[in-house]
Amino acid sequence: MVKNIKMTIQYDGSSFYGWQKQNNKRTVEGELSKAINKVLGRKTRLVVAGRTDSGVHANGQVVNFLTTSKIHPASLYHHINAKIPEDIKVVKSEEVDLSFNARFDAKKKRYIYRLMNKKDLHPIERKYFGFSSYELNLKNMIEASKYLVGRQDFKSFVKYSEGLNTIREIDRFKIEKFGYEIDFQVEAMSFMRNQIRIMVGTLLDVGRGKFKPEDMKKILQLKDRSSSGATAEANGLYLDQIIY
Amino acid sequence: MVKNIKMTIQYDGSSFYGWQKQNNKRTVEGELSKAINKVLGRKTRLVVAGRTDSGVHANGQVVNFLTTSKIHPASLYHHINAKIPEDIKVVKSEEVDLSFNARFDAKKKRYIYRLMNKKDLHPIERKYFGFSSYELNLKNMIEASKYLVGRQDFKSFVKYSEGLNTIREIDRFKIEKFGYEIDFQVEAMSFMRNQIRIMVGTLLDVGRGKFKPEDMKKILQLKDRSSSGATAEANGLYLDQIIY
Repeated sequence: MVKNIKMTIQYDGSSFYGWQKQNNKRTVEGELSKAINKVLGRKTRLVVAGRTDSGVHANGQVVNFLTTSKIHPASLYHHINAKIPEDIKVVKSEEVDLSFNARFDAKKKRYIYRLMNKKDLHPIERKYFGFSSYELNLKNMIEASKYLVGRQDFKSFVKYSEGLNTIREIDRFKIEKFGYEIDFQVEAMSFMRNQIRIMVGTLLDVGRGKFKPEDMKKILQLKDRSSSGATAEANGLYLDQIIY
Repeated sequence: MVKNIKMTIQYDGSSFYGWQKQNNKRTVEGELSKAINKVLGRKTRLVVAGRTDSGVHANGQVVNFLTTSKIHPASLYHHINAKIPEDIKVVKSEEVDLSFNARFDAKKKRYIYRLMNKKDLHPIERKYFGFSSYELNLKNMIEASKYLVGRQDFKSFVKYSEGLNTIREIDRFKIEKFGYEIDFQVEAMSFMRNQIRIMVGTLLDVGRGKFKPEDMKKILQLKDRSSSGATAEANGLYLDQIIY
């Protein structure tokens, strides 16, 4: 009997060349596939909800795959964790309908960008936070972020836009401060490459006074990458949750 | 003119075999010495406030060394940071009296043990926190920690006690909870090898009900390592501050 297994995964992205399998490079998909293949005894094709770039972390990445294994779906993750390097952890495995597809059935993805805003970064923080030593005006950043919510053309916020439909819809953009940490929570059905990091980089320019909040409107209208801010470092980005 | 330089240092201990220089092993002293020697152009002997074990981190380690360098003492740390791996950071350099000795002049050392108390550790937390999934009685742990304060024989809380004077004086033991994190702050003029980690491990046994708070008194009286709890993992320990 073929079963469709959905698994939820956390990882520390700092020692991976991103998600996608590559020859001679350590990737999350590569290491996870190796462990799954060992447990299931055969090559298994994974479907992933959202590929992440080099250095990006995950609190709740989701994959699915088909298997005829007799291991109980709810205990599969224990077997896989036993074969996996410690910078990846499977937190849940469950049987789902055969029609479930981790990528195409995702209704929403939530990312969190974690930034440290202080004089200097502690070495233990360097792989897990973006960083800014500027005095940031949080109120202005929050005001600016409101321009990013809704369905519109994000051409100014993408690395490569050639031949790409750059219309996206952001459902929620929330900025919160906890001590020295500023968290940016963003939700959308889909994002383009580097979109969140460019949005965060642009909001940091607003925070330090280089842009006014209302400049966001103009930046969106210009549809030109050179009008927005720098790409914030990958280190601070976490794929937080996939909502089905 | 010979100057005595005091430097304050932070490090991520997870990729080091502890502080002390060792052949063919990556240590904090080894990497720091290499950088200092490059900047000063000669071999320089470092005095350190408190050597740390493998995996232990530092928020405020202190070293001192003598030099005839013409670089301004207050900017020396910039030059050294430029030559050092990113898991070490010098946060301050200053000229001090020639008589200053980072080790012997330390009046007090403060360590913090950071523990995550939840169902499971996220992969990004694994190198920076101790861990317990038991339900812990914080009140009992705090009560138990009071027995550890003061001048007494800590023979039950040391790895090797043969030929060692095991009398120490703990000035302060504070336990606080922030969300899932429990922090143990300990201050004393000096600690023995693994003493803090064994104290924390024993307090965790109190927290989960294996010991009663008042059992601490008996454990101290027994002067026997086998009467106390397990040694808590090195990952969670931070040399926080040296007080002169």
